[in-house]
Amino acid sequence: MQRYFIPQTDWEGNEVNIKGDDAHHIIRVMRSQVGDQIICNHQDGNAAVCKITSLNQDSVHATVIEWKKETVELPIAVTIAQGLPKGDKFDLVLQKGTELGANAFIPLKMDRSIVVWDGKKIEKKMARFKKIVKEASEQSHRNKIPEIALPLTVTELINESVNYDVKMFAYEEEAKVVGHQSFADIVSQMVANQSVLVCIGPEGGFSEQEARVLRENGFYSVRLGPRILRTETASLYALASLSYHFEELNGGNE
Amino acid sequence: MQRYFIPQTDWEGNEVNIKGDDAHHIIRVMRSQVGDQIICNHQDGNAAVCKITSLNQDSVHATVIEWKKETVELPIAVTIAQGLPKGDKFDLVLQKGTELGANAFIPLKMDRSIVVWDGKKIEKKMARFKKIVKEASEQSHRNKIPEIALPLTVTELINESVNYDVKMFAYEEEAKVVGHQSFADIVSQMVANQSVLVCIGPEGGFSEQEARVLRENGFYSVRLGPRILRTETASLYALASLSYHFEELNGGNE
Repeated sequence: MQRYFIPQTDWEGNEVNIKGDDAHHIIRVMRSQVGDQIICNHQDGNAAVCKITSLNQDSVHATVIEWKKETVELPIAVTIAQGLPKGDKFDLVLQKGTELGANAFIPLKMDRSIVVWDGKKIEKKMARFKKIVKEASEQSHRNKIPEIALPLTVTELINESVNYDVKMFAYEEEAKVVGHQSFADIVSQMVANQSVLVCIGPEGGFSEQEARVLRENGFYSVRLGPRILRTETASLYALASLSYHFEELNGGNE
Repeated sequence: MQRYFIPQTDWEGNEVNIKGDDAHHIIRVMRSQVGDQIICNHQDGNAAVCKITSLNQDSVHATVIEWKKETVELPIAVTIAQGLPKGDKFDLVLQKGTELGANAFIPLKMDRSIVVWDGKKIEKKMARFKKIVKEASEQSHRNKIPEIALPLTVTELINESVNYDVKMFAYEEEAKVVGHQSFADIVSQMVANQSVLVCIGPEGGFSEQEARVLRENGFYSVRLGPRILRTETASLYALASLSYHFEELNGGNE
């Protein structure tokens, strides 16, 4: 449905008087008729589906049928479970992941994680993490600040994972074997309001044991493109792809 | 298997003479022996599994066992033209952009770029940039090292842009107006072997003048998801989406 940003002055309650270029576009370009529907954006950030009630030479009158509940939030809830990485890479995952629409983050204590976040460090770290996601949420104009869990073990993650509709882990070795289900296949089967848990290994990847246990517990192993990605890049690839799929490819034109 | 990008001059048919840093890495870091295997990349984009036939103090000789038939390169050639950002963000764009499959990078001097890369700085910077993309190419097992242009003005970019099949710029304001073409629509119309130039503004975005000139010269204005992205995140969103579209959604199962 075609969308128009209507200046405040051209709204009267639920009635819209469309003039100028927008009217021209509706009348001459779209060749719309009385009864056709358009989306009108109000400057306050809301948008409404409107029905055209009259047209003349250079103006269009429309009336609101329904105010849309628009959101800049991903239609699916994506949780990134990230194997504890070295240095400040987790900060990057949080900041960029928030911009890209993540719903929550879980730091994961994994076999090949080199760093340890112990009791004293963790409180300070969590405070900094919360600041990072709050600032990134504001900067990216989100309606929601992602949650950050305390670090879990893989066993704890598996217990948590029963709450998710879809579970996957980015495992290059597995993704090379015949008959694996592709990332895009899994994504294409998801629908709005589902939740997905995406598990990314630390720098050294998953141990064979971890990969086996995840697979046994309903996690799909996927590849994220054909190149080898750094751990922090893999999280961002997953989120950007999910945004592209659900917000641009399907849904970008509503 | 460790991978090395070998300059054209060090190949003789199926024989490779490895010198300098790469030889040092093979001899001192990897402590390789005669008979060990490595992957040698040719500058034409091909790669071969090679067996080390001799080592001495500062050079390594290897011979091709098998040329690999790899397709780790994006089927479309993506050039990121990035408005000069502050701090070390350009480093991040280069490193992550290389992992995500970029073909080339163009630093752009834009109206709202705060930093200036002057004559003295630029030489040092370019040397560091080249090191970053070489290392990221090796790490992500690519067959090609992306090129990095010297900084261009928008006018110079427009002159360059005639060489591209598709041109776009990430302009949130423009993407809201009537009749914009969506990113996914444009991507969906692209086919293998085409080239695309994706222009990303600096922190402050595009000036109105820049947006107008780009539009007049055939650049589509697109949005990259509904959230406001930082300049460096926008580049990575574009590349991850293009990888997802061409390597996972279409072609992931070949």
